[in-house]
Amino acid sequence: MKTIKGFKFAGIHCGIKKEKKDLGLIYCEKGATCVGVFTKNKFASPTISSAKQILNKNSNKLNAVIVNSGNANCLTGAEGLKNINTVLDSLNSELKLNENSSLNLSTGIIGRPLPITPIKNGMNKLVAELSENVDDFIKAIMTTDTFEKIASKTVLVDGQKINVLGVTKGSGMIQPNMATMLAFIMTDATVDAKTLQETLNYAVNSSFNAITVDSDSSTNDTCLLLASNAGVKINNSNLAIFKDAIQEVSVELAKLIIRDGEGATKFITIKINNASNEQEAKNIFYAIANSPLVKTAIFGENPNFGRILSSAGKINSNIDPDKTTLWLGEYLLYENGSITNQEKQVLDKYMKNKEINITLDLHLGNSCVTGWTSDLSHDYVDINADYN
Amino acid sequence: MKTIKGFKFAGIHCGIKKEKKDLGLIYCEKGATCVGVFTKNKFASPTISSAKQILNKNSNKLNAVIVNSGNANCLTGAEGLKNINTVLDSLNSELKLNENSSLNLSTGIIGRPLPITPIKNGMNKLVAELSENVDDFIKAIMTTDTFEKIASKTVLVDGQKINVLGVTKGSGMIQPNMATMLAFIMTDATVDAKTLQETLNYAVNSSFNAITVDSDSSTNDTCLLLASNAGVKINNSNLAIFKDAIQEVSVELAKLIIRDGEGATKFITIKINNASNEQEAKNIFYAIANSPLVKTAIFGENPNFGRILSSAGKINSNIDPDKTTLWLGEYLLYENGSITNQEKQVLDKYMKNKEINITLDLHLGNSCVTGWTSDLSHDYVDINADYN
Repeated sequence: MKTIKGFKFAGIHCGIKKEKKDLGLIYCEKGATCVGVFTKNKFASPTISSAKQILNKNSNKLNAVIVNSGNANCLTGAEGLKNINTVLDSLNSELKLNENSSLNLSTGIIGRPLPITPIKNGMNKLVAELSENVDDFIKAIMTTDTFEKIASKTVLVDGQKINVLGVTKGSGMIQPNMATMLAFIMTDATVDAKTLQETLNYAVNSSFNAITVDSDSSTNDTCLLLASNAGVKINNSNLAIFKDAIQEVSVELAKLIIRDGEGATKFITIKINNASNEQEAKNIFYAIANSPLVKTAIFGENPNFGRILSSAGKINSNIDPDKTTLWLGEYLLYENGSITNQEKQVLDKYMKNKEINITLDLHLGNSCVTGWTSDLSHDYVDINADYN
Repeated sequence: MKTIKGFKFAGIHCGIKKEKKDLGLIYCEKGATCVGVFTKNKFASPTISSAKQILNKNSNKLNAVIVNSGNANCLTGAEGLKNINTVLDSLNSELKLNENSSLNLSTGIIGRPLPITPIKNGMNKLVAELSENVDDFIKAIMTTDTFEKIASKTVLVDGQKINVLGVTKGSGMIQPNMATMLAFIMTDATVDAKTLQETLNYAVNSSFNAITVDSDSSTNDTCLLLASNAGVKINNSNLAIFKDAIQEVSVELAKLIIRDGEGATKFITIKINNASNEQEAKNIFYAIANSPLVKTAIFGENPNFGRILSSAGKINSNIDPDKTTLWLGEYLLYENGSITNQEKQVLDKYMKNKEINITLDLHLGNSCVTGWTSDLSHDYVDINADYN
C-alpha cells in the first residue's frame, strides 16, 4: 500500500544535499486532524516548538507538512525560528493556505543555518509534483538510512475498511548530528483530535518508545499521526481496533529503524516479563539495551549472560536475584540465584543467529515490556567517528 | 611511596589464572579500622554481602583482606557464599585470626564457581611472602589493567605526618565480565570508624563516583579505606586536611582507571558548572560522558558539539538553552541559544590533543561537578566483543 485516501505526497531535490532528494511534502486538501509526539530534549530544534504552537493555534487541523533533510535547523537560535516562518510563508502562498495550516520539520546536521534559498526556489516544483504515491516523500526525508521504511495495515469494521499508512526515517534512535527519527502515520479514518492523541500516545509507548540504538534521544524526534477524515468514523465500538492498527504500524516502523541501526549486525528483542510495574520493566529494558558491554558481546557472538544480569542490576529496582530467570532464546541461563549448566557449544551456536531473543523474567508482578535494539559494531564506531 | 606504617602486603600466583599473580593479601597485625563503599548492583557478588556483614559484626575492626583475581565469584548462588567462608577459614587459620577479622574480595569472570583448591593450597605461601612493599599485591589484583595503579600523599599536621597510600584495579568503570573496580586506600592515621566512613563517602563522591568508561556499574565494585591507627589522631582540628588527603589519592586513582580505560585513546575531562544542584550536575555529566555518540566523535577527533548539547539535553533538568554556554578547551562553541563562529580548522587542531576538556556552564545555580571519561574506539569493541 503506497497511497491513502485524502493525502497527496511529493519529494524533490532542491539543493540542501548535493544530489539526493531533500524536500518532502504531505498535503491534505480538505484538512486533516493532526496530533504529534515530540522529543523532550532541552536543546530541541525550533521546528519542535513551532509545530507544537501551530497545532495548538489551529486546534489540530492541518493541510500540509513540509519536511527537509540535510539540515536539522537546530542550535540555530532566533534565526532558526525566523527561517521556519519563511519556509511556511512560501509554502502557504504556493498552496494558497491560511496561516497556521502547515508545519515545517527538519532532519540533518545540527548547528548550521537552514539554507532558505534552495527551499524557496524548490517550492513551486514540490507542489507541482504532488501525487498519491508516497515513494518520493520517503526518499526526501532519508539521511543515513540505507533503505526506505514503510508499513501499512487495513482493518475491517462493520464491513468498512480503515486504512493506515506509515513512513519513517532514522537509522539510530538518534544520531543527534543527523537529527534522528521522524515518523508520519496517516489514516483515512474520521477521528477527533483528543481520540487521535490518545491513540498516538498508546501506539508510541510500545513502539518508538521501546527501541534504542544508542541511548540518546535527539533534538528533532517527531512522530505525527494524521487523519484525513475521509472514511469510517471512530467511536467507542471500533476504537480498540483502530488503536491496535495504529500500534501495529508503529511497531513495524520502529523495528525497521532498529534493523537499519547504524552498523547493526544483529536484531535483538528483549522481553522484560512480570516486573512490579511498567516503568520498572522499561528502565530494565533500557539498562540492558543500552549497555555497550551487552551490545559488544552480542556483536562478538559471545553468550555473555553475566553482562545482561549486571546491566539489569545496575539500576534501582525491586529485582530479587533469587526470583529472577534469564533466557537466551529457549535456553534457561540463570535461576535460583545461580547460573545453569547450559553447554557453551549450544549457546555459541545460538549467538550466530541474526535475531537474538533475550527474556528476563522478574517474577515480581505482571507488567511486561518488549523492546528492540541492535548490537555495537566496528561500523557503528566508524559511522559516528567520521561523520562531519 | 610503596609502604605504609602498620600494613603488610603479599601477592602470589596460586593457579586461578594461567601464569599471572592472582591472590593478594593486605595484613594489619594490630588490627585496622576498615570502612567500605560497595556496588549497589542487584546482582552483586556474595563477596559484597559477606564483607558488609563482617564489617558490621566486628564493628569495623579488621586484620586482613584477601583478594583473588581471575574469578569474580558472582552469580554463584549459595555455593559462592560457602566458598568465601572456606577461603576465610583457611586464611584465619594460617594467620591465627579470630572469626570475622578478615574479608574476601574477588574480581574476574562472572558466573563460574570460585576455584577453591588453588586458593587453599596457596595460603601458606601467601602469608609467608608478606612484606612492607605493596607491589606484589597490586599485581595480584589486576585483570585487563595494562599498568599498575598506585597513588600516595603525605600531609603535615602540627609537624606530624599523615600518610595515605592507595592502589586500585579496573580498566573500565566496569567490565562485568571482568568484575571491575577494586580500590584499597590505607592510612597510618588513628581514626574512629564513623569519621573514617564519612571521609570515604566524601572522597568517593568526587572520585570513583565521578568517572565512567561505559555506564555500567559492576557486581563487585568495592572501595575500602583502612586506618592502621599507628600515627596521628584525627580530630576536629585536622579532619579537613585528612579528608582532602584521602580525596586527592582517590581522585588520582580514579583518573588512572580512566587513563587505562579499555581501548581509550583520549582522556576527557568534563566540567558541569553552575547547575541548580549537585545531582543535576552529576546527571548531566553522566549523560554526556556515557553518550556513545560523544565518545565516538572524540575518538574520531571530530569537534561535534551538537552531540554534547544533545546528550546533555536528553535528560530531565532545569537546563535553559538560552543561558547555557559550551566550551571546548578555551574555545566558546555555544551561547545565547546559538552556535558561535569558531573556525573549524582551530577546533580540528584542538581535537588532536590526547587530553580533551569540555565545560558546560548552565548559569542556573552554583553546583559544579568535574568528572572524567574515555573515548569509544575500535579497540573497545574488540576487547569487549572477544572476551571470554
